[in-house]
Amino acid sequence: METKLQNVELNRIRIDDGFWNRYINLVEDVILPFQWDLINDSVEGAEKSYCIQNFKIACGYQEGEHKGMVFQDTDVAKWLEAVAYCVAKKRNPKLEALADAAVDLIAGAQCEDGYLNTYFTITGKPRWSNLFEGHELYTAGHMIEAAVAYYQATGKDKFLKVVCRMADDMCEVFGCENGKLHGYPGHPEAELALVKLYRVTHERRYLELANYFVRARGTRPCYFASEDCVKNQDFIFPEFRDFDWDYAQAHMPVKDQTTAEGHAVRAVYLYSAMADLAYEYEDEELLKQCDVLWTNIVKKRMYITGSIGSASYGERFTTDYDLPNNTNYSESCATVGLAMFSNRMFQITKDGKYMDIVEQALYNTLLSGIAMDGKHFFYVNPLEVVPEIAEKNPTMRHVKTERQLWFGVACCPPNIARTLASMGDYTYAVDADTLYVNLFIASRIETELEAGKAAFTLTADYPLNGDIKIVVEPERSRAEFTIAVRKPAFSKEVTVMVNGKQAEYTLEKGYIYLKREWKKGDELQISLDVSFRFVRCNPRVRDNIGKVSLMKGPWVYCLEEADNGKYLSSIIIDAKMPIQEEYDGELFGGTACAKLFGTRIDYSDTGDELYTDAAPVYKADSFKAIPYCMWNNRGKGEMLVWMREA
Amino acid sequence: METKLQNVELNRIRIDDGFWNRYINLVEDVILPFQWDLINDSVEGAEKSYCIQNFKIACGYQEGEHKGMVFQDTDVAKWLEAVAYCVAKKRNPKLEALADAAVDLIAGAQCEDGYLNTYFTITGKPRWSNLFEGHELYTAGHMIEAAVAYYQATGKDKFLKVVCRMADDMCEVFGCENGKLHGYPGHPEAELALVKLYRVTHERRYLELANYFVRARGTRPCYFASEDCVKNQDFIFPEFRDFDWDYAQAHMPVKDQTTAEGHAVRAVYLYSAMADLAYEYEDEELLKQCDVLWTNIVKKRMYITGSIGSASYGERFTTDYDLPNNTNYSESCATVGLAMFSNRMFQITKDGKYMDIVEQALYNTLLSGIAMDGKHFFYVNPLEVVPEIAEKNPTMRHVKTERQLWFGVACCPPNIARTLASMGDYTYAVDADTLYVNLFIASRIETELEAGKAAFTLTADYPLNGDIKIVVEPERSRAEFTIAVRKPAFSKEVTVMVNGKQAEYTLEKGYIYLKREWKKGDELQISLDVSFRFVRCNPRVRDNIGKVSLMKGPWVYCLEEADNGKYLSSIIIDAKMPIQEEYDGELFGGTACAKLFGTRIDYSDTGDELYTDAAPVYKADSFKAIPYCMWNNRGKGEMLVWMREA
Repeated sequence: METKLQNVELNRIRIDDGFWNRYINLVEDVILPFQWDLINDSVEGAEKSYCIQNFKIACGYQEGEHKGMVFQDTDVAKWLEAVAYCVAKKRNPKLEALADAAVDLIAGAQCEDGYLNTYFTITGKPRWSNLFEGHELYTAGHMIEAAVAYYQATGKDKFLKVVCRMADDMCEVFGCENGKLHGYPGHPEAELALVKLYRVTHERRYLELANYFVRARGTRPCYFASEDCVKNQDFIFPEFRDFDWDYAQAHMPVKDQTTAEGHAVRAVYLYSAMADLAYEYEDEELLKQCDVLWTNIVKKRMYITGSIGSASYGERFTTDYDLPNNTNYSESCATVGLAMFSNRMFQITKDGKYMDIVEQALYNTLLSGIAMDGKHFFYVNPLEVVPEIAEKNPTMRHVKTERQLWFGVACCPPNIARTLASMGDYTYAVDADTLYVNLFIASRIETELEAGKAAFTLTADYPLNGDIKIVVEPERSRAEFTIAVRKPAFSKEVTVMVNGKQAEYTLEKGYIYLKREWKKGDELQISLDVSFRFVRCNPRVRDNIGKVSLMKGPWVYCLEEADNGKYLSSIIIDAKMPIQEEYDGELFGGTACAKLFGTRIDYSDTGDELYTDAAPVYKADSFKAIPYCMWNNRGKGEMLVWMREA
Repeated sequence: METKLQNVELNRIRIDDGFWNRYINLVEDVILPFQWDLINDSVEGAEKSYCIQNFKIACGYQEGEHKGMVFQDTDVAKWLEAVAYCVAKKRNPKLEALADAAVDLIAGAQCEDGYLNTYFTITGKPRWSNLFEGHELYTAGHMIEAAVAYYQATGKDKFLKVVCRMADDMCEVFGCENGKLHGYPGHPEAELALVKLYRVTHERRYLELANYFVRARGTRPCYFASEDCVKNQDFIFPEFRDFDWDYAQAHMPVKDQTTAEGHAVRAVYLYSAMADLAYEYEDEELLKQCDVLWTNIVKKRMYITGSIGSASYGERFTTDYDLPNNTNYSESCATVGLAMFSNRMFQITKDGKYMDIVEQALYNTLLSGIAMDGKHFFYVNPLEVVPEIAEKNPTMRHVKTERQLWFGVACCPPNIARTLASMGDYTYAVDADTLYVNLFIASRIETELEAGKAAFTLTADYPLNGDIKIVVEPERSRAEFTIAVRKPAFSKEVTVMVNGKQAEYTLEKGYIYLKREWKKGDELQISLDVSFRFVRCNPRVRDNIGKVSLMKGPWVYCLEEADNGKYLSSIIIDAKMPIQEEYDGELFGGTACAKLFGTRIDYSDTGDELYTDAAPVYKADSFKAIPYCMWNNRGKGEMLVWMREA
């Protein structure tokens, strides 16, 4: 197996992009301060988190009971992880002071033997007694991810030492050896976190524990049905009673799983760890299986918006080609996980198909999960909403018709925050002599290749237009190395110029490779085709038969009631008519809208009969589409991605 | 208020209809013996009922705990009611012997003070302590309905005396007077039953208790939140915790309710009682309100198959124009209730619009609820099913892809049985000088009008064709009276002949009135238009936009995979092409099928990409539609009512 691609340290990437700034800047300016107040229960009108309070109680600083979810500790962990990525980019003493205080609390809540979990510590319930539901290892995983990120960002190792002690305890408790618990996490997360911990500490036992967890999963007899696991009959989540093992990807040994099943977040977190382990153990078979699972998702079980999870009950995958648009779950966190999994697969294989999906996920569902004020969030990301029905039909009771301030289960908002804060990790990657440009986000990056240090300044107004300019500045006046630029699959055509002249390149697995001697100031210009295009769905997906969607680059578009009135599903788009691009400088800080032509039902002419011989009357009209990621920023209203086609 | 129409005694109606015989004969031949075995737990492979066992325990004949649902007693009550209707038509000593034995058990389980309910008697839980969930009054209602029917059928009064003692106890316990419980049933049913009991016993207190229950419902403060009701915190159904009062139609006083809300079965049982009370109390306002509620249902909340309940969660109404085809509940029992409510409204108002809905409900969803073998049943009646998705997507976990032998909650099978056994009550009605012919079911009826006795022999092969012949035989050689024949709204044209000559008639509220001197042997011939017709849905129903359904008379048609292969939703019907009627003598004992023309997607030509620029290729094809009521009698497969229209 070749050496995988590496991230560039976040402090060496400076993003300054017209589109992404709107979101990324929210993290430090709005989300992190707001989230800090939330986990400290000082936001009026928001549901209480109790997260910090639980730590104070566990530390013995105050009296009280544990409150909130069994995994409430992850709130502060995800907050710390996002803080770490921000601080990694630019130190921020004020933020670090808060973070250090939080780390002190976490350290104070740790037991003598390394165990760390306020729910089980405060309640006194037996540790590791309900792995299917207890989320102990899930919580541990988020602690580890946060600690690794904070260590890498600041060099401070207090938090890292805490999680190492915690992980050491886990290594004592779990494993295939006699006398150890033969269990594994109900919710995967610890696995990928332990690989991260191994990579930063080089302590192989952490990698081995991750490997044990993944290999043990789904073996028979099922651990979740064993005495060790069911002795705590006190179900935390009543609905878990009805879930099959596939809900937690434990329906068969992981090595036999070839379709993406169960809870979507769990699935992609698990697959991310599997990709990590395939690489670390040079296990080609496991890597191939990761690709099989990934392919099953993106070819049969993924929404066009890069979201996954077709059903609310179980927040889960269902079956091939089952992609209902208004009852789906499509959790923001699952999209984050899909990006994580895809990015890992890309870094190992250098195949652009994975990065295409990263882009689709980030440009659509990641951003639809957050309001442009940075304070309101969607967990569930439907592709079609009619508010008066979604609010009245309990089949859609999981669908919110407006983004919420903060939910009881605070997984998505901090997950979005940590992803936005670490966008650089998705934008670039490097190996010895190649800089990979994955996403076209205006930014400056400095990195070190075999040929020496080099800086690159990428300017773009993508996906508004497809012109990408990269100014190359090797430290030495000239140096031979490779720039690899992703050619998204949607762009059939591409032109590649260096200093205004057609340049030679090779195209491999979706990347344009330019290996040459670069001089300081060389300008690489790539032109991608980001013109509007109509996209159809495989007709095996019944819900989208006879429908068309609109895309521009990675952006999926949608119709909103604010622009087009009610009854969006009565609209028929004439896809043979040209699409007019209309830049709206006022809307959401400026965005590219599309004017579409077609017909719609004239409701003024509709009688009161429920069933009638008469067909409805259609009238010609034009329609305005906006990027899906920006929907629901103008109040409640209908929204539609898949439009009927003439 | 005019005197309402009356049923004709069932022993004076003999149904002998090519279509209905297939179902009605099942009741005595298959369903009742099978159901008897079921409630006696002697059917191998079926879920245990424990119903009779519970009565034996309550009688003290054997030891044990109560098993089954809190309302398990209703199984034997509904069985007895169906037995009664069968026996009413033709005495059957063997069946009556079983019924008498069941009545003895019921009598033996009654408490000294009249209270009768095996769940509360055996468990010793406090009576009337959880009216929202306890189903005590619901169970009492079914006992009363059964006892009244059995008394009317056989003249035996033992069971009637039992339920009178029970109802007397209820009159002592409930009411607006001080010292009584101010509660009312969580699940309406006792109300309409008490009216029946009043009508047979003429004891006004039963009517008054029914009236109290209806008028108390939904008043504030809500009884279900009161101390008396919530003292039993032991929830029987965990999901009830989350239900609002509108689930049980208790969200506001009944007199203020103008839209059909909540659990659909509860709603139509309540409205049936409201119609009864409006008549008994000559309350024009309440009658008008019943019509408002009925109109809300049939113009905004009813499936074309005459089913109601758009959501599974709460088995309930949702909102106007929300009629999803594959996630709906559409419980068989709710259709029975809608027919009951509509029949009552018709009998009071003589308006054919109500009877049109009775017909739509009975010819479609009542029969789709039962397999043609009489042993398998649907509770949920979707209008669109794709088995591999319904079985994998938990959003549709309430949808069964094949009829089940018997469910844990045995409400629908006996409800279908009692309705089939009493079809005569829907077919005819009389007042002093008029015979109302409501349904076109081949039969012979004898009745007494002011002008004397008369017999009528109706022959028809409806809805295969629209020719209805009624031979009139007044006992005296000639007599003046009126025959009123329903003119279904779907039949725009009608011809009315007597003895082969155009006859004079008046048309009023959907009925053809022929008032004349009838001679023995007069032949009345009515020709209705039952040719195939395409029906569209109001485009406010988003799920049916751009779609068309096929009907013939009251029958809704559907496409099945057995005839048309997979991917039914890829089919586009050309509604401008003629519909070919094709009688299939083999299918389901002979039925009228339709051949439709149009196009469908050619799946052999479909690539593996999930999202693509290419539009799918369509090919011309013809399609076979069958009556919806007969679907799923050839194994598991796709089914579709609403077809895309060119």
